Amino acid sequence: MTPGGGPDDGLWLEDVEEGARYTTAEHEVTEDEVLSFARDFDPQAAHLDAAAARGTFFGGLVASGWHTAAISMRLNVTSGMPLANGWIGGHIEADWPTPTLVGDLLRVELAVREVRPSRSKPDRGMVVVDYETLNQHGEVRQRTTAHLLVFRRPEPTVG
Amino acid sequence: MTPGGGPDDGLWLEDVEEGARYTTAEHEVTEDEVLSFARDFDPQAAHLDAAAARGTFFGGLVASGWHTAAISMRLNVTSGMPLANGWIGGHIEADWPTPTLVGDLLRVELAVREVRPSRSKPDRGMVVVDYETLNQHGEVRQRTTAHLLVFRRPEPTVG
Repeated sequence: MTPGGGPDDGLWLEDVEEGARYTTAEHEVTEDEVLSFARDFDPQAAHLDAAAARGTFFGGLVASGWHTAAISMRLNVTSGMPLANGWIGGHIEADWPTPTLVGDLLRVELAVREVRPSRSKPDRGMVVVDYETLNQHGEVRQRTTAHLLVFRRPEPTVG
Repeated sequence: MTPGGGPDDGLWLEDVEEGARYTTAEHEVTEDEVLSFARDFDPQAAHLDAAAARGTFFGGLVASGWHTAAISMRLNVTSGMPLANGWIGGHIEADWPTPTLVGDLLRVELAVREVRPSRSKPDRGMVVVDYETLNQHGEVRQRTTAHLLVFRRPEPTVG
């Protein structure tokens, strides 16, 4: 692990290329985890109970959108764009075009939209990424834009 | 619970007023839950381990931004604006101006920015809300804008 908390061979600001693309590993969504996340963070009928969910707008059990967001984060930090200082998000925008279902095999596909060095702080910059969370049928469960704080490679300390 | 999944005396589209404000109950953030969320969804040094977190940008243990988002959702759906059909989010924007710390007593303060009836679907509309997640010292941990799908009160069924 680097001093920043990311992978040893991770990317610093000068290593990130506009247009670069990353695809994560996959994560299978289970009913247990949908219910567990709902109990902890989004206790609404559509996420809490398969029978009660039938009477809702969704017509059946669906994962909380925030659960999809959290799974996407896990995929990004464990098998997505490997930032040396880890993923430090400052601003995000997200849509949930379709709800995540039990049995979905989720992956994240990411593209670097922009690398924007800071004008005032020469040791860092902002990386803007667009990513989609998709299931095994290519259905988009979440569409996200994230602004990430990324540092330049630290200067070696001279004793 | 209404047929929509929200509280029995909850608000339908025609009940939501622009400018209305809601403040939720409070939730105390514990170290156990910060570490547990990190292990499940954001396994990075700053969220996973207090000692390792000292070497990161944050200088100590902080909650994942997605954890703050999830806690905010729980507060909103359990003690915030009581929508009769529950909270159905379509689009969100969020910033994390400061990181959530262990011991934070979080609450959400929400204001309804806009109620926008659908032109094509007369049974529903979009409610745009702005909310802030704050701790006991008034420090803003998350600033969010959410677009929520809200239905009109269903017509009584005539037999």
